Amino acid sequence: MFYHKKQLQYFTPPQRPDPVYAMKMQELVGGSFGEMTVMMQYLFQGWNCRGPAKYRDMLLDIGTEEIGHVEMLATMIAHLLDKAPIKAQEDGAKDPVVGAVMGGSNPRDVIMAAMNPQHAIVSGLGAMPADSVGFPWNGRFIVASGNLLADFRSNLHAESQGLMQAVRLYEMTDDPGVKDHLSFMIARDTMHQNQWLAAIEDLKSEGFEETVVPKIAYQYGKKEHSYQFWNNSEGEQSAEGRWAKGQSIDGKGEFEYVANPQPIGPEPNLPQPDPRLHGTMASPAMQQVSEAGANLIDGISQVVKGAGETIKRTITGEQ
Amino acid sequence: MFYHKKQLQYFTPPQRPDPVYAMKMQELVGGSFGEMTVMMQYLFQGWNCRGPAKYRDMLLDIGTEEIGHVEMLATMIAHLLDKAPIKAQEDGAKDPVVGAVMGGSNPRDVIMAAMNPQHAIVSGLGAMPADSVGFPWNGRFIVASGNLLADFRSNLHAESQGLMQAVRLYEMTDDPGVKDHLSFMIARDTMHQNQWLAAIEDLKSEGFEETVVPKIAYQYGKKEHSYQFWNNSEGEQSAEGRWAKGQSIDGKGEFEYVANPQPIGPEPNLPQPDPRLHGTMASPAMQQVSEAGANLIDGISQVVKGAGETIKRTITGEQ
Amino acid sequence: MFYHKKQLQYFTPPQRPDPVYAMKMQELVGGSFGEMTVMMQYLFQGWNCRGPAKYRDMLLDIGTEEIGHVEMLATMIAHLLDKAPIKAQEDGAKDPVVGAVMGGSNPRDVIMAAMNPQHAIVSGLGAMPADSVGFPWNGRFIVASGNLLADFRSNLHAESQGLMQAVRLYEMTDDPGVKDHLSFMIARDTMHQNQWLAAIEDLKSEGFEETVVPKIAYQYGKKEHSYQFWNNSEGEQSAEGRWAKGQSIDGKGEFEYVANPQPIGPEPNLPQPDPRLHGTMASPAMQQVSEAGANLIDGISQVVKGAGETIKRTITGEQ
Amino acid sequence: MFYHKKQLQYFTPPQRPDPVYAMKMQELVGGSFGEMTVMMQYLFQGWNCRGPAKYRDMLLDIGTEEIGHVEMLATMIAHLLDKAPIKAQEDGAKDPVVGAVMGGSNPRDVIMAAMNPQHAIVSGLGAMPADSVGFPWNGRFIVASGNLLADFRSNLHAESQGLMQAVRLYEMTDDPGVKDHLSFMIARDTMHQNQWLAAIEDLKSEGFEETVVPKIAYQYGKKEHSYQFWNNSEGEQSAEGRWAKGQSIDGKGEFEYVANPQPIGPEPNLPQPDPRLHGTMASPAMQQVSEAGANLIDGISQVVKGAGETIKRTITGEQ
Amino acid sequence: MFYHKKQLQYFTPPQRPDPVYAMKMQELVGGSFGEMTVMMQYLFQGWNCRGPAKYRDMLLDIGTEEIGHVEMLATMIAHLLDKAPIKAQEDGAKDPVVGAVMGGSNPRDVIMAAMNPQHAIVSGLGAMPADSVGFPWNGRFIVASGNLLADFRSNLHAESQGLMQAVRLYEMTDDPGVKDHLSFMIARDTMHQNQWLAAIEDLKSEGFEETVVPKIAYQYGKKEHSYQFWNNSEGEQSAEGRWAKGQSIDGKGEFEYVANPQPIGPEPNLPQPDPRLHGTMASPAMQQVSEAGANLIDGISQVVKGAGETIKRTITGEQ
Amino acid sequence: MFYHKKQLQYFTPPQRPDPVYAMKMQELVGGSFGEMTVMMQYLFQGWNCRGPAKYRDMLLDIGTEEIGHVEMLATMIAHLLDKAPIKAQEDGAKDPVVGAVMGGSNPRDVIMAAMNPQHAIVSGLGAMPADSVGFPWNGRFIVASGNLLADFRSNLHAESQGLMQAVRLYEMTDDPGVKDHLSFMIARDTMHQNQWLAAIEDLKSEGFEETVVPKIAYQYGKKEHSYQFWNNSEGEQSAEGRWAKGQSIDGKGEFEYVANPQPIGPEPNLPQPDPRLHGTMASPAMQQVSEAGANLIDGISQVVKGAGETIKRTITGEQ
Repeated sequence: MFYHKKQLQYFTPPQRPDPVYAMKMQELVGGSFGEMTVMMQYLFQGWNCRGPAKYRDMLLDIGTEEIGHVEMLATMIAHLLDKAPIKAQEDGAKDPVVGAVMGGSNPRDVIMAAMNPQHAIVSGLGAMPADSVGFPWNGRFIVASGNLLADFRSNLHAESQGLMQAVRLYEMTDDPGVKDHLSFMIARDTMHQNQWLAAIEDLKSEGFEETVVPKIAYQYGKKEHSYQFWNNSEGEQSAEGRWAKGQSIDGKGEFEYVANPQPIGPEPNLPQPDPRLHGTMASPAMQQVSEAGANLIDGISQVVKGAGETIKRTITGEQ
Repeated sequence: MFYHKKQLQYFTPPQRPDPVYAMKMQELVGGSFGEMTVMMQYLFQGWNCRGPAKYRDMLLDIGTEEIGHVEMLATMIAHLLDKAPIKAQEDGAKDPVVGAVMGGSNPRDVIMAAMNPQHAIVSGLGAMPADSVGFPWNGRFIVASGNLLADFRSNLHAESQGLMQAVRLYEMTDDPGVKDHLSFMIARDTMHQNQWLAAIEDLKSEGFEETVVPKIAYQYGKKEHSYQFWNNSEGEQSAEGRWAKGQSIDGKGEFEYVANPQPIGPEPNLPQPDPRLHGTMASPAMQQVSEAGANLIDGISQVVKGAGETIKRTITGEQ
Repeated sequence: MFYHKKQLQYFTPPQRPDPVYAMKMQELVGGSFGEMTVMMQYLFQGWNCRGPAKYRDMLLDIGTEEIGHVEMLATMIAHLLDKAPIKAQEDGAKDPVVGAVMGGSNPRDVIMAAMNPQHAIVSGLGAMPADSVGFPWNGRFIVASGNLLADFRSNLHAESQGLMQAVRLYEMTDDPGVKDHLSFMIARDTMHQNQWLAAIEDLKSEGFEETVVPKIAYQYGKKEHSYQFWNNSEGEQSAEGRWAKGQSIDGKGEFEYVANPQPIGPEPNLPQPDPRLHGTMASPAMQQVSEAGANLIDGISQVVKGAGETIKRTITGEQ
Repeated sequence: MFYHKKQLQYFTPPQRPDPVYAMKMQELVGGSFGEMTVMMQYLFQGWNCRGPAKYRDMLLDIGTEEIGHVEMLATMIAHLLDKAPIKAQEDGAKDPVVGAVMGGSNPRDVIMAAMNPQHAIVSGLGAMPADSVGFPWNGRFIVASGNLLADFRSNLHAESQGLMQAVRLYEMTDDPGVKDHLSFMIARDTMHQNQWLAAIEDLKSEGFEETVVPKIAYQYGKKEHSYQFWNNSEGEQSAEGRWAKGQSIDGKGEFEYVANPQPIGPEPNLPQPDPRLHGTMASPAMQQVSEAGANLIDGISQVVKGAGETIKRTITGEQ
Repeated sequence: MFYHKKQLQYFTPPQRPDPVYAMKMQELVGGSFGEMTVMMQYLFQGWNCRGPAKYRDMLLDIGTEEIGHVEMLATMIAHLLDKAPIKAQEDGAKDPVVGAVMGGSNPRDVIMAAMNPQHAIVSGLGAMPADSVGFPWNGRFIVASGNLLADFRSNLHAESQGLMQAVRLYEMTDDPGVKDHLSFMIARDTMHQNQWLAAIEDLKSEGFEETVVPKIAYQYGKKEHSYQFWNNSEGEQSAEGRWAKGQSIDGKGEFEYVANPQPIGPEPNLPQPDPRLHGTMASPAMQQVSEAGANLIDGISQVVKGAGETIKRTITGEQ
Repeated sequence: MFYHKKQLQYFTPPQRPDPVYAMKMQELVGGSFGEMTVMMQYLFQGWNCRGPAKYRDMLLDIGTEEIGHVEMLATMIAHLLDKAPIKAQEDGAKDPVVGAVMGGSNPRDVIMAAMNPQHAIVSGLGAMPADSVGFPWNGRFIVASGNLLADFRSNLHAESQGLMQAVRLYEMTDDPGVKDHLSFMIARDTMHQNQWLAAIEDLKSEGFEETVVPKIAYQYGKKEHSYQFWNNSEGEQSAEGRWAKGQSIDGKGEFEYVANPQPIGPEPNLPQPDPRLHGTMASPAMQQVSEAGANLIDGISQVVKGAGETIKRTITGEQ
């Protein structure tokens, strides 16, 4: 169960509104790696967690913190949208020199043309659950697989991309309020990047495995292909990396570089389709014979089914 | 530029068709962590790569291999769909005892009801670019950010989830053909899990950074919050993990456990909205005054704009 | 069955093209609360209606009218897109003073950069079934539940949001043609807001219920929680509203304000997962034992199944 | 900022697992009218609220409560998925009579075929942010417009549909645990239906308006069409409703029934398209002339633009 | 403007309900090639049409007919959903022998498990704007490009796929009512396939072009590659087709078979990224120098911008 | 299995970066008719092909070529994004006159405001699998039906729309590098338009049918409606086309123009809903009686089911 405090975890208002920047900042709210993603991902992982209590508790701690991050960003976006231009050329009048020269491209008009139109029409100058091009957040952005190592790696990836996006947005503005606000979020993302690295280490020190399902993968997988690098692209620069030689990271094999990979499988040889689906067969003649046959079988099947139903009625005593 | 060889990288046909399993196997083709995802993710990362040649080459090697994995699975799905039941009760007639007792639920009917209906209606018994519930693959499943460390972590996460899904599907069948086929794919996923771990190590040994944008994040982020764990959820089991104490993984700070976290920010205090958007204001009176004012300003603005246009026409000589 | 008349229900051409405004107007065509939504929502509700004839007839009246509203807006958008700039800087040449000063940001270029690029590339200056950020209309925007009271409330909500959006767009333009056109649509939305309020009243006066499934909800719902307001957010301003005290609106209870709400349920205690799914268990030891057990059970199950099949063959006489 | 308590707001475990019902219950988690929708809708409305404090407080109270409802349902779904069948026919062996007769349709196999395959493959027997057909929740399911009356009506609609869906799911099970659990949720939905009706009443008693933007709609809308019912569908049963006669609900007009509605607008007459977009023109000849002209104008425009750039360089002193 | 008649264009009720078939039939309502697609595609093409009146008129004729097809199918689906099982095992009781033997898989339960759960929970046994796996119809399913030849080909493709799907569904049922109903729809699809073939012929006989933008494509395209077939896949069976030799269909060239195609372009050589985006550069050293430089330039730019603003204030007289 | 060569099939770098044009060019990568669509469509058709080898081979040739087209465009977009403006007003400083006059709308700022923000924030100046408004490519854009004639028509439609979009983009730029690059792609699209026309001809000359499933459609379809044109829209301009008179294109009938079409079907008459779904019935009284009855039947059903289970236990010997 959840509770809310009225104050924000952290907040510095922007020095001045900037509706175009508000549109960009939506990426941190509803983008693939925005705060809605990490919030939902950590909450669902926590709710579905069947592992040790400390992981579940930790997931719900951070998931709950992230709800507050969505709140902080939504508040920032509402401030940035304040006084957003609603109508073309409205301020040309107040700034006659610029207005006179510019016609339809005075500064406010440029801003109005470039902002997310839904910030005015749909949300009335509020944040939306969407990214910087207006595409809505959706549930396929998150994962909670039940396997904590796989999921902590997903969390590490999400925080890595998210941190980098926050840094990019930090570089895109000179507004000291926005910069201060983002510097708190960058700090938290820094913690969270470290947190998932630590959590992966912790799983190992607790005796859980270091790579995902290694014993099973080793048992089920064809061992001769489990540590081969296939060079499917011309040139051999890829032979220079750690992945091409030496012991595999899971310690169970040796990397091998396959410089000229060749197929092991046969040419595909698909069976002919059911004629009732009218797919194209290997020849027109085959198609005609097949379709005739299908009609015949269909007729016989009706007759026999009638017999079957008589038997059924006998058994069940049904009329 | 790309080339194709007719043979499959690897292939073992299923021992018998199984259209319900074909539906499930779609998860490995078009699911969030299916082969279309890794194929597209590695290709886009390779095409967008501005880093050292060996990484670009390696990304295109594996991206190209993955196209062949989609091909292998598509071929397997077409075989599994062979002889899929098209019409209810069609085989009741051939198996009269079962048909008589079962009425509308003979085995083939159960299968027909449970398979993905689009495998018959839309694709004519072929694979589709969709997941196991029929949701289509989409471009938001992938990322190529330009930062190789962030992207290799994304790749590691995708292969971890994907490997586990392949293992789960391996457990769900007894068909020796399918199991053999999957054992090749599990081997390749094992390699790819190792490969991204190795690639992350390689970046470090080349002199690139070990965590994502650490210097920048340290410079921009509020240091006092960069290594704190906030315990937003009641109970302190989360204090027991590696993330709660000791040196941070990036080596730049000490983890600190904040047991009773309190907000640092103020209560939000949003400015009143532009009256022309008809949002609800803090009081009905304010709303009425504002709307009247808006009409007034609008009128004045028209007058002044007229003046501005006169000036403009004078400057440009336009009539 | 449907028929079409060539004339539009209402139309005033715009005084001048405005491709940026055309992009915004798409919100009224294909947005969540655009005309495609109300058209499809009323038609599906009418087609699925099993209630009294007057409601079905009324739903099909208004659904049919709304097809014509999509038509009106599509026509308006095609006019607004007329003469849209296709190529950067093409008109700088005709307006040399502006062109000389502005370089890459002459008015037409700003417009071209800000318009929906698909209006040129994809639709060739025609309307599209999408909203103001280019996101396509989709079937999840509508509902037809079979319960007329629930659906009339959905209709009231859609017309309320839609009317407000039309008013916002009215404020965003000075073009007298567009304003006149929208003033007809605002009038119709005004009617439709009133219509759904009247329809809700009508359901009541006919003897249908005033709130959704009140008897059933009262019978099934835990009565002690059916009229409580839980104050999950710090501070008690929420105690001042009508919802916090007095008789409930359905007349079946008294509102109660729970100032310090506490959980009633237990801590969650999820069962351990099936080992074949490789989720993380409560301890590494448990996970190892479980996986071993699973392999064993699997083996036994194969043996017993073989026996089962022998019995089956005996019963059915199958070889 | 948000906090979490470990206990659930309410919870009764199911008497027995039921993975097919778990799939259906996803509608209440991630469907259009599920708990994710109301949670996100109330939180965004609260965060964006610029109206009186009591409304903002109340929105955050209920939004915060709803996070806990997602948690309750996610926990229930994890219990319902416990012991879900992973592999076909695995239990036929344990129940030889049924197994022998049924072949491929023993009870566990039917269940396995009918459950959401992603509950096994993707989430490892946990809840997902998706609806009962596996379609992911998305941000277009919610609205926060800034206008509280419009938004409270949206909330009323969401709770009405949601309450009815909860009742339908209540009817679909005999499990006493699930029924008890749902009876708490039905109680809360009953409260919330009443709450939004009360909140709408409250807005009125505070002096805010009773219908959405009535003064503006009356000022901008064409009055002669603001209270007309157009009978676009043959037959006049729709004349019998409250919407067809008497005073309009907003008290500003009289409903009027237009029995034989006729278009007021002209036939559309779209301008010819820009030839560079290669749309089809009114005649082939026109198309050819136009395209030739476009090439010509393009050439001239290049020449004049060169001149403009010379002027610009002179003004700015640029080389 | 549109009108509605109460009678359906055609209708035969099903002989018996069949909720699983109802789910499949949704493909014809809301699938990629369902009636919503052709309805919306023809209406938008008609509304956006700037070509000869007969094409516009024809498009609106058929678009209007298609609205009635959605209506026919929605009505059929409501009938097929009649008496759909709502609760597991409810009819086991009425059929005790089957119920006793079958446990959880009596016929009604199989049906209930296999039907679209939203047909019960969301729509209350009515049709939905979605396809046979529950994925919603969306606006990207249609196209209206302004070019009639391109669009008539799109229409031909949609009717070809749609007709085949209707035939497949016809094969999947034995219900004489459904078969009769579909035989009307198959007839109309047969007409529509012929209609678009005729319309393409008509464009040619009117003097419009036979292939899409041939003159432009010939003028702009590199002629030496305009009629080459590139054999990018090993083996030369593809040399046997009409596309590999002889005159091109547009009569403007000769097909040429390139048996061993080689790249014409260079290796890609992307420029180094802006350091402020923190993409990975070609070497760690380059990255460090670049980032330092970016900070410097940023500082200088601030200083110079200050100067620029002083100049601006001087010109505009602003304080 | 697939291979990659490092060189591009063709490439000319742009003369200068243009991030706004890069955004538009995304339509050719990830739009409905972009290269990802044709690549995936041809590969899936090839992989699913059960027809003659030459068609399968040809499909895989062209599908493989198209992977390289995505590569070419991705490379072009990365070049066009080079030096894209990241921060507002950064270049005002370097161009003080323009900067001083323009305030917030200097050329670079206009560009920055208009470009796709995700090109900076998400992809770090690389191409994305999305269209020109940022909507992601998805699997519903393609079809592979198993019927080659239907699919070749889909291919023809995709290449027709795609060719026209490439030509429109060619017209939108003056950059000689981009124009040269596009002229190669236009040449390939020209070939592919011709190729699908040739492939359709080839199917016919091989003895496959010329129209989709004509024999089946003729056998199943109601012949009297298979060649009628219904004039559902007022006016008879549509009588002037080839589709309204003369022999049908499939040679099996005569087109007939139905000038005043009337419905053939009855008024819909839906059955009353199951009371447990709480849909609105034809009268309030009926609803009350029904709900009471449902409760009664439910009770009886429980009793009888108990009896059934006793019988089952007797048969199976289960306790």
